[in-house]
Amino acid sequence: MSEVLWNHLTAAQLRALAARDAVVLLPIGATEQHGPHLPTGVDDFLAAEVCRRAAVTASKQTPVVVTPSIPTGLSEHHMPFGGTLTLTLPTLHALLRDICRSVLRAGFSRILIVNGHGGNMTALNALVTELTAELVTPIAVASYFGAGREVIRSTLETQDGLMHACEGETSMMMAALPWLVRDEHLSEAHGPRITLPAESTEPVYMAVPFDRITRSGVAGDARVASPQKGEAMLAGCAKALAEIVVRDPWAK
Amino acid sequence: MSEVLWNHLTAAQLRALAARDAVVLLPIGATEQHGPHLPTGVDDFLAAEVCRRAAVTASKQTPVVVTPSIPTGLSEHHMPFGGTLTLTLPTLHALLRDICRSVLRAGFSRILIVNGHGGNMTALNALVTELTAELVTPIAVASYFGAGREVIRSTLETQDGLMHACEGETSMMMAALPWLVRDEHLSEAHGPRITLPAESTEPVYMAVPFDRITRSGVAGDARVASPQKGEAMLAGCAKALAEIVVRDPWAK
Amino acid sequence: MSEVLWNHLTAAQLRALAARDAVVLLPIGATEQHGPHLPTGVDDFLAAEVCRRAAVTASKQTPVVVTPSIPTGLSEHHMPFGGTLTLTLPTLHALLRDICRSVLRAGFSRILIVNGHGGNMTALNALVTELTAELVTPIAVASYFGAGREVIRSTLETQDGLMHACEGETSMMMAALPWLVRDEHLSEAHGPRITLPAESTEPVYMAVPFDRITRSGVAGDARVASPQKGEAMLAGCAKALAEIVVRDPWAK
Amino acid sequence: MSEVLWNHLTAAQLRALAARDAVVLLPIGATEQHGPHLPTGVDDFLAAEVCRRAAVTASKQTPVVVTPSIPTGLSEHHMPFGGTLTLTLPTLHALLRDICRSVLRAGFSRILIVNGHGGNMTALNALVTELTAELVTPIAVASYFGAGREVIRSTLETQDGLMHACEGETSMMMAALPWLVRDEHLSEAHGPRITLPAESTEPVYMAVPFDRITRSGVAGDARVASPQKGEAMLAGCAKALAEIVVRDPWAK
Amino acid sequence: MSEVLWNHLTAAQLRALAARDAVVLLPIGATEQHGPHLPTGVDDFLAAEVCRRAAVTASKQTPVVVTPSIPTGLSEHHMPFGGTLTLTLPTLHALLRDICRSVLRAGFSRILIVNGHGGNMTALNALVTELTAELVTPIAVASYFGAGREVIRSTLETQDGLMHACEGETSMMMAALPWLVRDEHLSEAHGPRITLPAESTEPVYMAVPFDRITRSGVAGDARVASPQKGEAMLAGCAKALAEIVVRDPWAK
Amino acid sequence: MSEVLWNHLTAAQLRALAARDAVVLLPIGATEQHGPHLPTGVDDFLAAEVCRRAAVTASKQTPVVVTPSIPTGLSEHHMPFGGTLTLTLPTLHALLRDICRSVLRAGFSRILIVNGHGGNMTALNALVTELTAELVTPIAVASYFGAGREVIRSTLETQDGLMHACEGETSMMMAALPWLVRDEHLSEAHGPRITLPAESTEPVYMAVPFDRITRSGVAGDARVASPQKGEAMLAGCAKALAEIVVRDPWAK
Repeated sequence: MSEVLWNHLTAAQLRALAARDAVVLLPIGATEQHGPHLPTGVDDFLAAEVCRRAAVTASKQTPVVVTPSIPTGLSEHHMPFGGTLTLTLPTLHALLRDICRSVLRAGFSRILIVNGHGGNMTALNALVTELTAELVTPIAVASYFGAGREVIRSTLETQDGLMHACEGETSMMMAALPWLVRDEHLSEAHGPRITLPAESTEPVYMAVPFDRITRSGVAGDARVASPQKGEAMLAGCAKALAEIVVRDPWAK
Repeated sequence: MSEVLWNHLTAAQLRALAARDAVVLLPIGATEQHGPHLPTGVDDFLAAEVCRRAAVTASKQTPVVVTPSIPTGLSEHHMPFGGTLTLTLPTLHALLRDICRSVLRAGFSRILIVNGHGGNMTALNALVTELTAELVTPIAVASYFGAGREVIRSTLETQDGLMHACEGETSMMMAALPWLVRDEHLSEAHGPRITLPAESTEPVYMAVPFDRITRSGVAGDARVASPQKGEAMLAGCAKALAEIVVRDPWAK
Repeated sequence: MSEVLWNHLTAAQLRALAARDAVVLLPIGATEQHGPHLPTGVDDFLAAEVCRRAAVTASKQTPVVVTPSIPTGLSEHHMPFGGTLTLTLPTLHALLRDICRSVLRAGFSRILIVNGHGGNMTALNALVTELTAELVTPIAVASYFGAGREVIRSTLETQDGLMHACEGETSMMMAALPWLVRDEHLSEAHGPRITLPAESTEPVYMAVPFDRITRSGVAGDARVASPQKGEAMLAGCAKALAEIVVRDPWAK
Repeated sequence: MSEVLWNHLTAAQLRALAARDAVVLLPIGATEQHGPHLPTGVDDFLAAEVCRRAAVTASKQTPVVVTPSIPTGLSEHHMPFGGTLTLTLPTLHALLRDICRSVLRAGFSRILIVNGHGGNMTALNALVTELTAELVTPIAVASYFGAGREVIRSTLETQDGLMHACEGETSMMMAALPWLVRDEHLSEAHGPRITLPAESTEPVYMAVPFDRITRSGVAGDARVASPQKGEAMLAGCAKALAEIVVRDPWAK
Repeated sequence: MSEVLWNHLTAAQLRALAARDAVVLLPIGATEQHGPHLPTGVDDFLAAEVCRRAAVTASKQTPVVVTPSIPTGLSEHHMPFGGTLTLTLPTLHALLRDICRSVLRAGFSRILIVNGHGGNMTALNALVTELTAELVTPIAVASYFGAGREVIRSTLETQDGLMHACEGETSMMMAALPWLVRDEHLSEAHGPRITLPAESTEPVYMAVPFDRITRSGVAGDARVASPQKGEAMLAGCAKALAEIVVRDPWAK
Repeated sequence: MSEVLWNHLTAAQLRALAARDAVVLLPIGATEQHGPHLPTGVDDFLAAEVCRRAAVTASKQTPVVVTPSIPTGLSEHHMPFGGTLTLTLPTLHALLRDICRSVLRAGFSRILIVNGHGGNMTALNALVTELTAELVTPIAVASYFGAGREVIRSTLETQDGLMHACEGETSMMMAALPWLVRDEHLSEAHGPRITLPAESTEPVYMAVPFDRITRSGVAGDARVASPQKGEAMLAGCAKALAEIVVRDPWAK
């Protein structure tokens, strides 16, 4: 099963995958505060987990490989809480350029950046536009929670889409990495509901420090999270992502 | 009436506006192909026109000034049509940083970037996040057609929101700059309907060259455009933008 | 007549102009204090106006198109007066590189940057040298007041060449955009005479804040300005610029 | 035990560690070919593993936390083998700057970059010098195999120090992640002995493509590797690293 | 006498000079073809020589120190001849920024960049403007041949100002470093007369490859050069430069 | 003899050397405090001197040319002493890129950067790796004191390798430029012994301000320096460097 992870494979195996024009999933998350009950690595863990599952599923139809995830993203708005690592936009641009260029030089041609962090969404769209021109190769991007929007909506009780350290993320962490969920803090793990900026219909956008929105660091309500919901969402997001891969959006 | 345009004002007038903490609108458009019937400057002209109208309206309640518009944006996807000027993302970042910093050094504190080009949307959101951190001042951004979404939806017959060189943009050009609309080409001015990437619910994003989408360069149907619709939309977008300004989103 | 302005033309018209190897004029000005009587946009307005006139004239002999003007330039020395927007040199370099590259990709090969601001002169010469190597295409630059040096000298009463917000600039604004001249402040509109740094024979150069030179923001004497002088200079500068274009300095 | 990993901790826990001025270990590896028998992630896995062990040990005396590892480094010389991801030096500089700055903003002051890749060594020394000046805070760097030089030397049979995909790295992978070692390819896993450039006494340095040195991708002899040797080295390197941490090299 | 050269002085001596607010001369030249008879280092040698002489003279009235010269400048236009080293504008900017910042950090406040290469002139003016803002300290620049314009004009027989590898430069090399002048090639050392771009009154500027201007690499006539003329010019330029230093242009 | 110095040669001579694929030595030093008895230019002077001697020797077997030396390097750690000029790493990268690219464009293919400053060592190794990829040409680097390690070790009485302003550097200055050695300060010219960071076996590296190591600015003991030792080392280092050149490390 680990045969889908780039860093678990030998160079010879990767050369063989490149020769078959395997799809390359490039997960990117964030390392940022996730309320009183979740670890700071949530976005990175979940992006990587969904990628791994999607790759295993899609591999039955088309070869797929998952690069090491980029564990840090754009998290300036969470800095006031501490425990947060953030990149600037030019650094993220440079990092994605170097990794994508390496993947192309290794013989692959189909790259899908898989995002796990709401704060990365608009930037990744803008950067993918830029990288497509710079590398003269179409680079695709999707957020795993965008791909799995339907399953998330139908699974969650208190929200329509992912918020932050919420019913959704907490449930998925309970399913994937339960030992990293602090049950003793669950009762504090709630806050106002938000819409991710990239999904908002609010016409004006400003970068709002997250501590103006929530004191607990949570947006949404983690108290109703469950591993069953989490498993349903992880499976559903992975399935949706696998379908995208198989559909081959890079083909003209 | 021209008293709202930065470049029409004297330095003394601008110092007085800064002393009153006037809101600064910074229009940005694009210079890119707009079908057989519209000039390449449409996005720039309309962003500037809406800003000017909004500023005149809002000025009754709060002082407002409009900087010279940035006539070029991110238009790589239109390059295959010719007649198109495009910036790279780092250049747009640098340009906005220098202009915003100048505005702040001139004594103002409230900046709203007003966008007129679909292809700038995600990049502007990402850049505004970055500039807010770099300049230690909240910078806001809105697309004029996002602010006026409701009036656009209710006015248009063949589409819900703006597309490209479409019923909407053509109508507004007929209202604002009718001598720049080539009526003799209107009959060719139609193409498939699209959703702006930033408003799309499609989970995967790729930068698609626009000539893969439409041969005419038009997305939507300009044949049903009219100056009456255009005037309604310009007025409505300006009113919506003025309301945003008066609401003062920079206030904590 | 508007057929010479890039942003007034359709993509098809621009493709046709490129096929005829039209000359591309790229005006650049500044947005900076211009004394008590002139708006901050003077340098931008006049560069664009002279370009437009020159293009109309030269078009009788060779195809010409004028890009949207760059409204901001290098104006750090005017910052103490307020009301001023300035770019850094690396930003101006990036901006010109992107625009020139777009023009070349659109099929044109002959670019003349037309400058309207004394403070841009040496930088533009240096940048044009750099861009010529970067883009492997010769890029030319001229200041409109350099092209029209003779007519300016013979028209002005109190000065030999353009200064700042002076007899010359004020006269041209009276001819081109009279409603933007504040007559009620003309009596204060005078200051010491200067030579533009790029035309100075002074061996040492330092960047002197303009408020050390003049308290009014004016260098020269605007009190003797007249629309007749302005029209003579605009017409003369445009004629001189048109002659440069027709002479085809890009030919080997 | 997972209490030493930044991304396993909550923001509140990290704030508490910052308040105690915990040491921050920042592992960096590489994703590059490692012969026919080892996965491409070796350098990243081993740097992270040694950091984790060192942090657990040192934590008994002083608080320590380990950031997510940087999985990619400078691997241009391995590109000919395929399966390799490489950063450029400016990108690595930008990435380390952003992460270190975030760590400092999160309240920590003592950072030790822990390297797992020979090809990163000189660059990291140079970058740490630069970051120390840029961030006005001393940043330390050590390669785990430099810290554990003695135990490596005394454990290995066929070499004095680490080479590449060699007796040493293979043994440590057998101890830490045995399921990722391809035993069936061990018999091919040997090549000429090398000295890491940064440890070489050869006066001239050139960046030699690794395929000029070894056809198998291995430098050294993995055939004599064993999990016992690997465990001895991992334990010894971690102990040595822990001693460095406890010694507090940041103190004046 | 060597007591004016920064690199000949000890740190203690330089601290003492900084304490007296000594003027710092920073020579910059070029390494580029200089015809059949002169070495490629001419512009560097002459800038350094004039600085040294000026510093010795001015030191009688005010303390002066001369940094190591920057031996390379902007010489793209000479590349077709071979033997030429050139910097790009951003590199020259970065280099001057680092050196000027170091000089300021060393306790000095008055910097005069002394240029010896026509091709650097406009760029240095533009960069000095930028550095003055970046370093919040006025930086001055002068070309030695601008400072000594009068003595050059009155000394030369066949030209008014310096050209390239001409009567002027050849004479000064005969006076300063006669063993580097190839007398056997003097008879070929002539070419068309030029005006340095920065001193030209031609309204259009383009970067013309120097081999389009002259086949010999010479502009002007070196055949009438003499060491007597050279000594007169070196002495005169140094005197003029010393007077500038003593005049203290940095004082408000 | 000066026939090996690039800036002493004419363009025609350099074209001839390029046609013979001459080796290009590119010396780089530093301008930084060197104790109470030595001038700040020591590292630059000695790198250039060894290059010149090596080039003369090697020229008997293979053509060699020496570019103008880069007089400034990475000297941040010496800034507290005053009298020191330092570059940042990105500036040094840009400078070396431009110069190496010029050398290649001039027709040469074999470049050896010859370093004279301990603080440049790791950075130069990292930059040479980068430049080799950027310029698609192998660039070599050696420190002159690394090439001559044996002769230095056997000549010195109180140290094994070069330190700073020590027995070694002082002796070489006594041999090469004795008038720049302040004998009256020799008695103070001693300090603790150090190992150059790049040669250290200490596993942790931090950038230590040099004034924490030595109050005199000297590491080692200059009191036992002599011109005889200096001449032996200069000759030996040059011989070793010439041998490297003749051995042709660029050949595959």
